[in-house]
Amino acid sequence: MENLSVSDAQQCVLDSVSVLGVEPVKLEQCLGRVLAEKVYANRDLPPYDVSAMDGYAVNSADLVNIPASLEIIEDIKAGDMPSRTVLAGLSARIMTGAPVPKGADAVIRVEYTQPLDENKVQMNVAVKPGNDIRMRGEGMRNGEVVLNAGTAITPGVVGVLASLKKAQVQVYHRPRVAILSTGNELEDIDDPVDPDKIPNSNSYALMAQLQELGIEPALLGIARDDPAELEEYLLRGLRFDVLLVSGGTSVGVHDYVRPIIESLGVQMKFWRVAMKPGHPLAFGITKDTFVFGLPGNPVSSMVCFEEFVAPAVRRMMGNTSLYRRTLTARVTHDIKHQSGRTEFVRVTLDVHEGSYLATATGAQGSGMLLSMARADGLMVVPAASTGLSAGEQVTVQLLGGSFFQDVPGF
Amino acid sequence: MENLSVSDAQQCVLDSVSVLGVEPVKLEQCLGRVLAEKVYANRDLPPYDVSAMDGYAVNSADLVNIPASLEIIEDIKAGDMPSRTVLAGLSARIMTGAPVPKGADAVIRVEYTQPLDENKVQMNVAVKPGNDIRMRGEGMRNGEVVLNAGTAITPGVVGVLASLKKAQVQVYHRPRVAILSTGNELEDIDDPVDPDKIPNSNSYALMAQLQELGIEPALLGIARDDPAELEEYLLRGLRFDVLLVSGGTSVGVHDYVRPIIESLGVQMKFWRVAMKPGHPLAFGITKDTFVFGLPGNPVSSMVCFEEFVAPAVRRMMGNTSLYRRTLTARVTHDIKHQSGRTEFVRVTLDVHEGSYLATATGAQGSGMLLSMARADGLMVVPAASTGLSAGEQVTVQLLGGSFFQDVPGF
Repeated sequence: MENLSVSDAQQCVLDSVSVLGVEPVKLEQCLGRVLAEKVYANRDLPPYDVSAMDGYAVNSADLVNIPASLEIIEDIKAGDMPSRTVLAGLSARIMTGAPVPKGADAVIRVEYTQPLDENKVQMNVAVKPGNDIRMRGEGMRNGEVVLNAGTAITPGVVGVLASLKKAQVQVYHRPRVAILSTGNELEDIDDPVDPDKIPNSNSYALMAQLQELGIEPALLGIARDDPAELEEYLLRGLRFDVLLVSGGTSVGVHDYVRPIIESLGVQMKFWRVAMKPGHPLAFGITKDTFVFGLPGNPVSSMVCFEEFVAPAVRRMMGNTSLYRRTLTARVTHDIKHQSGRTEFVRVTLDVHEGSYLATATGAQGSGMLLSMARADGLMVVPAASTGLSAGEQVTVQLLGGSFFQDVPGF
Repeated sequence: MENLSVSDAQQCVLDSVSVLGVEPVKLEQCLGRVLAEKVYANRDLPPYDVSAMDGYAVNSADLVNIPASLEIIEDIKAGDMPSRTVLAGLSARIMTGAPVPKGADAVIRVEYTQPLDENKVQMNVAVKPGNDIRMRGEGMRNGEVVLNAGTAITPGVVGVLASLKKAQVQVYHRPRVAILSTGNELEDIDDPVDPDKIPNSNSYALMAQLQELGIEPALLGIARDDPAELEEYLLRGLRFDVLLVSGGTSVGVHDYVRPIIESLGVQMKFWRVAMKPGHPLAFGITKDTFVFGLPGNPVSSMVCFEEFVAPAVRRMMGNTSLYRRTLTARVTHDIKHQSGRTEFVRVTLDVHEGSYLATATGAQGSGMLLSMARADGLMVVPAASTGLSAGEQVTVQLLGGSFFQDVPGF
């Protein structure tokens, strides 16, 4: 099978997955989820004209000639209902968020006034009608659609939902994800240190990448290079919505992994992607499960997760922004590149005169997990490139946090 | 008291707070925390020279004249220990991650070879010594400091910690944070809808902003405008590391909130910041608690959180990157601005020819929580600006996720 380009492989993955079902969650637990219902305003907000400032509610016509002296007829705090009408020559002391009384058409901030006595105040500026008033329904109008299904739930959305008194909302399910590591060379975190073994770091890095997406994966452990054991572990993993198999995708390993995986009903879509790191990346599907065969090298594994698994999982959760946010930077040094494969170079970002500068985090060997730990982003060297020169403009995907955009950006 | 500039107020807050104590957490729960210990490599990684590819371990000197035919003496899989030495004219079949046998100084990828018979293979390329070998200790060297205290724990760092077999790590505490809303006009989420009341959205938006930082706050509820009730609620809040008081900071409210708060031993540092939205922002300290008085307007509250509370809380948790990451964009329309206050304009970001374009999310009234829900970032209009013209370069703070940098960027 020939190597797929990164974007063809991304497309193949995304064409295969679809949005999961819907479940109710409490407002306290919905951050980071995606709304699965239309939400309507249940009242006007604010419910009446309110003062945007501390000051005095007045008739703007009274202030044509300033300074103007007005009588104070009432004190209105937030939560009070005004009892009197502000006729010509009168005013009411009013606080931020309090209802504007009948008759008044503007608010003068306290700092533009001067108290004369207990019941009289001098206005030192003229204002237009509507000054410093938040009008009824300015925030939302009763009955209007305020939030659509598909909205990613950010803190601002949580605030809006609270203002609509939605103590519970419908959101899309998160996929159940399992992580399986394979290989006789691996030593798990609880095993004693054997100097001839390789620590199993991939399961935990992948776990943390999923946690960053709001998913608590199941760690299935390490399957040894034994067909019966591998089959048993794979069967366990196929009970999940997504199965990540770490290792076991290199050419030699295919010899026996591939027949087992296919005998379990997994229809393989591809085994190879033209990228670096991450070359041996496999993807297959069953009726219920999406299976990713991730490279055993720690960095390759993490990069393949970002480029393929994260977009798939985010689509399943109802997100439309699937890809890491990109920005434009200038590379600070030459980058050698053989055309034919898209390369993802771990970089740190610095700002110089308002522009981002991207610098590779030292050696880029795919075993260099530390370089991934230190990276701010992944610089994308296009497959067609024959190398980059210092100062050239490049696209960098930002790593860290839940920061995604609608388009790949490269 | 005069209005502080945003950066003076940020400095005042950050000078007051310091890093909290240390606690152990499991590897599965450390994402997003900050490492509070130095971590050393406990072995060389890889522990021996390993093949970076599937192919053949060879003596590079044998390939000076290609094609060259070599005898295959052994199969080495990852996890195997080689039993034989690869002398001149010999080779070993080797898989990715498997130890390079004695004698061999290079690996030839399988795609550059051609099987001749069961025990013979033809090499079609010449390579240099070291080709496709990951050298012992290339990833990390036994005894070296791999991670320093103060490292933010990202998925890459989790991977490194796993490779060091750290099932548990020392991290800085998260602050215990309480949220108190104040105001007679407020109606809580479980109350029946009263058309004359204002829903309490601020507590929930602040809760979600804290959740985004990895903190589960305590919601203390709504204190009414009654000195005894307010004192009781404030006392409850002062048992936490950080107390956010929503509302109650406007000029008129000071009249009675300020004496209560000061009588409880809170030393107020400032009451006003020259910013929009967010003008009435207060900050005070006791021996054990940092108190933020946040504006009652929902957007002002959220913006003040981002600019002041988030950096303070992140410093307490041991982070050095305290501020939302910024990028440079071009504004797509004119922006009116009266000099004197730093303005934070909610914007959406689009990409056009590799540059970011920033567009205000409609009306910017501070009650417009929806505009905050829709924003990708906050465009910073400097206090000295007298307005911006379409096409001008601006700084935008990225909202969303845990995406922070070391410097304010504006």
